[in-house]
Amino acid sequence: MLEELKQAVYEANMDLPRYGLVTFTWGNVSGIDRETGLFVIKPSGVDYDKLSPDNMVVMDLNGNKVEGKYNPSSDTATHLELYKAFPQIGGIVHTHSSYATSWAQAGRSIPCYGTTHADYMYGEIPCVRCLTKEEIDGAYEENTGHLIVDSFRKMGKDVMAVPAVLCKNHGPFAWGKDAHEAVHNAVVLEEVAKMAYRAETINPRIQPAPQKLQDKHYYRKHGANAYYGQKEE
Amino acid sequence: MLEELKQAVYEANMDLPRYGLVTFTWGNVSGIDRETGLFVIKPSGVDYDKLSPDNMVVMDLNGNKVEGKYNPSSDTATHLELYKAFPQIGGIVHTHSSYATSWAQAGRSIPCYGTTHADYMYGEIPCVRCLTKEEIDGAYEENTGHLIVDSFRKMGKDVMAVPAVLCKNHGPFAWGKDAHEAVHNAVVLEEVAKMAYRAETINPRIQPAPQKLQDKHYYRKHGANAYYGQKEE
Amino acid sequence: MLEELKQAVYEANMDLPRYGLVTFTWGNVSGIDRETGLFVIKPSGVDYDKLSPDNMVVMDLNGNKVEGKYNPSSDTATHLELYKAFPQIGGIVHTHSSYATSWAQAGRSIPCYGTTHADYMYGEIPCVRCLTKEEIDGAYEENTGHLIVDSFRKMGKDVMAVPAVLCKNHGPFAWGKDAHEAVHNAVVLEEVAKMAYRAETINPRIQPAPQKLQDKHYYRKHGANAYYGQKEE
Amino acid sequence: MLEELKQAVYEANMDLPRYGLVTFTWGNVSGIDRETGLFVIKPSGVDYDKLSPDNMVVMDLNGNKVEGKYNPSSDTATHLELYKAFPQIGGIVHTHSSYATSWAQAGRSIPCYGTTHADYMYGEIPCVRCLTKEEIDGAYEENTGHLIVDSFRKMGKDVMAVPAVLCKNHGPFAWGKDAHEAVHNAVVLEEVAKMAYRAETINPRIQPAPQKLQDKHYYRKHGANAYYGQKEE
Repeated sequence: MLEELKQAVYEANMDLPRYGLVTFTWGNVSGIDRETGLFVIKPSGVDYDKLSPDNMVVMDLNGNKVEGKYNPSSDTATHLELYKAFPQIGGIVHTHSSYATSWAQAGRSIPCYGTTHADYMYGEIPCVRCLTKEEIDGAYEENTGHLIVDSFRKMGKDVMAVPAVLCKNHGPFAWGKDAHEAVHNAVVLEEVAKMAYRAETINPRIQPAPQKLQDKHYYRKHGANAYYGQKEE
Repeated sequence: MLEELKQAVYEANMDLPRYGLVTFTWGNVSGIDRETGLFVIKPSGVDYDKLSPDNMVVMDLNGNKVEGKYNPSSDTATHLELYKAFPQIGGIVHTHSSYATSWAQAGRSIPCYGTTHADYMYGEIPCVRCLTKEEIDGAYEENTGHLIVDSFRKMGKDVMAVPAVLCKNHGPFAWGKDAHEAVHNAVVLEEVAKMAYRAETINPRIQPAPQKLQDKHYYRKHGANAYYGQKEE
Repeated sequence: MLEELKQAVYEANMDLPRYGLVTFTWGNVSGIDRETGLFVIKPSGVDYDKLSPDNMVVMDLNGNKVEGKYNPSSDTATHLELYKAFPQIGGIVHTHSSYATSWAQAGRSIPCYGTTHADYMYGEIPCVRCLTKEEIDGAYEENTGHLIVDSFRKMGKDVMAVPAVLCKNHGPFAWGKDAHEAVHNAVVLEEVAKMAYRAETINPRIQPAPQKLQDKHYYRKHGANAYYGQKEE
Repeated sequence: MLEELKQAVYEANMDLPRYGLVTFTWGNVSGIDRETGLFVIKPSGVDYDKLSPDNMVVMDLNGNKVEGKYNPSSDTATHLELYKAFPQIGGIVHTHSSYATSWAQAGRSIPCYGTTHADYMYGEIPCVRCLTKEEIDGAYEENTGHLIVDSFRKMGKDVMAVPAVLCKNHGPFAWGKDAHEAVHNAVVLEEVAKMAYRAETINPRIQPAPQKLQDKHYYRKHGANAYYGQKEE
């Protein structure tokens, strides 16, 4: 069942330790098959060196486990809400990567200070508020998803142009057209978080990059007029 | 004698360089067998690449060496006091890991700024005072143990919920139900110390995570209602 | 065609991940053959593990592709302007290396705080302004080259004595007598950027190294009276 | 000639990249044979992967090359002055290791903030002033040696208890009873420099560790009453 997707989600999960984004089991990646409406996610709390395509868990969008001997990631309900709200998203990743999590703990959005950021993400990476007591007491992980969805809608942000968010006092989620791209964006986020941290230390009166430059770099790589890279065959 | 425990303590010691927690011989792990009241600890000042299960040292809780050709770690008396005072503890580790030691040198407890911390440790990681001249002149390592024990009792902290401490101007001790879990907690401590350092730089007016969120994450992983990970078979 | 140069430029590109200067495809190296006026550059957006001497792209100084199945690096026009303006330059590299890019984002030149810097680079590494809207709307990459060239001429800086520049809100370019030396200088720049960052944190009232010491170290390694290293055979 | 010493000095030099203390050729180690008064040192500007025991250079204490096809390290005269002034020193190392060099650039001595420092080095690691114009114009490297020697004598510091120094705007020298111990001390220095940097960031009002604690840890490892480690056989 969904063998190809399981393989892809497995590989994307294994990229987390490879890129230094996780300690122990502090991360999870999922990918969705939009035709069947089923998504594949890492099992909860299983060590990366014990993962295999076979122990990935298959879920439906009502939150039912469809296949798998393990419990799915404890963050499954957050992934699910994002998949339901944003049909463009094909893969999601959650980590506690060090710099991005530090910004989340600090409760600050990451300003766009340069082209490394603008090449992949349009404008600041928002930090959404901590959940309320009621939201935490209720369906915590689902409410995390609702908060992200509502925040992006209120801010009028396109999730494909801003493919990451920081959850205050928690850490980042990132996403993309598939699980592989989601992890790619999580790596970019960590690099951008690191550079922004250092740039603010070097110049406490730093300003975001001019909008014009942000536009130039974002659209050099995205949209109809992109000219970075090779034409896909 | 205690072959299984020696193997486990040996492996836990070898995890220290693997996780980047030690330079040279700056760390030691022990584990206790509560039935016999004997504990196994790293020999003092022996390089990690010369360690083997066989050169671990076996001690009793009166501080007598029961087996082993080497001197035990110079911090043995501190381990011993913790084992005597807290029967729940099955393993102890001391390191000079870089970020945790920096907090200890700064003389500050590590506030709980996020869920990475709350997932494993309930509330701030306390930094206990430096020993007095008299305590240093006396049984220094034993007095370090007394100070940790007294401090936890005065603060009313559960050692299993706060499985680490910083000794001012010195460095961290961490513990757990066994040697393996003690090292796991030492890794968590170092990550948490790193993120807290950076989060304070990003936002000098940072506040600890709301108590409600700390509770949620701690109890998501601990106690009767935990739902993180897989049921143990 | 230019097989030796392609091999050298390929190797210089492969040194970027080896020295930790790039994430993903965020860097490019070129090298020029001054006799034919042709230069060889990395293809745009191709993963480092898919590079080979054969897929390097050969360009002329009018910006025409002379050989190669791939598109050249999107920064090709910047390289080209530097080659045209400064005949001493034989190789150029662009990266988003972490510390140098942080200085670029902060919009600050890197002062010469010590001999590590003075051994290779004479005086501060300048940070040139961000491009104007008009410059961005026009031939962006070419205009980046013009800006660097004009800035060095206005400042009266010798490009071989100051073999690197920071482009505000973007990142560094470095160069040298060939592609290999360009990458060497990019590594030096990153180390120097890292040390300057930390030195300012340690002492916010820090001053640049005395001019005399800068001169001593620079000329110990460069020019007719250099005495560092071995006589080249 | 001095084959054993050449082997030892070679190995100590190779430990520099192994411990991450050098970039390119930015470091050199020497060791002395006190019976013959000859010392062995790394050749100048030769890559670490081209070093071998055979290309080490043998020098006498008058600065004459006694054996070796290469020029000795450009810092040879500094090593020589230290060997002449302090007969206890058997090995010397110079690096541009990142944190120690940052303190040197900042022009600050490293205070003793904790036991990691006190275990190996007694009291602060001094930063000596930059050389004067006259000293730089003269025998620069020799004058660097004179300055270190004079500074230690004026401060009344025992070179074996304070086995390292920072040269302002330049970087660290460290030493020990032989080349191996010199490199060991250079590693300790870098760790101590890193922790002190972070500790000051965590607590800007930090104070040095109490003298009593510094004494305790230093003498736990050094002198007649040391009890750390194993009795040497």
